[in-house]
Amino acid sequence: MTPKEQLQQYRNSIDNFDAVLIHTLAERFRITKAVGQLKAENEFPPSDPKREEEQVDRLRRLAVRADLDPDFAEKFLEFVIREVIQHHKQAASNQS
Amino acid sequence: MTPKEQLQQYRNSIDNFDAVLIHTLAERFRITKAVGQLKAENEFPPSDPKREEEQVDRLRRLAVRADLDPDFAEKFLEFVIREVIQHHKQAASNQS
Repeated sequence: MTPKEQLQQYRNSIDNFDAVLIHTLAERFRITKAVGQLKAENEFPPSDPKREEEQVDRLRRLAVRADLDPDFAEKFLEFVIREVIQHHKQAASNQS
Repeated sequence: MTPKEQLQQYRNSIDNFDAVLIHTLAERFRITKAVGQLKAENEFPPSDPKREEEQVDRLRRLAVRADLDPDFAEKFLEFVIREVIQHHKQAASNQS
């Protein structure tokens, strides 16, 4: 295999993993949307700091075992949660 | 099922999807590391704007079909690529 062919093979794998990431994020958002509705309907508090702390700890542990930088895993979760909060706010403002 | 039980079920699903995301990201980073080495060994240019543009376009299309905000998909890819570049820089400075 030439280096160019090798590069193309790596890129094909990256594209496949990106498709996994996008579809998994789509499904995760579908669930956080349902969580937002459930919390609103039952007057549960919108955020749960203890739960978030547990999520961070768990993802950092998973990252270490998978040889991924745990700081990156934490930044990634923060990035996703920020997006979830923004979507919840948009949903709330569309209702009002 | 009580609302509290429903919330717990949603959270279990979120935790499972987060594990998928972390492990997929770990594998994606393993490949981008190999890409970095391959490019360095063969004196390929470190970045490829045309490839990046194609990646963004493709992920946006995938996101729309999966009912995910395409702007979020693009921000997500930028976030991951930024991290890859930072890791490449760190690897380069460790070698010099």
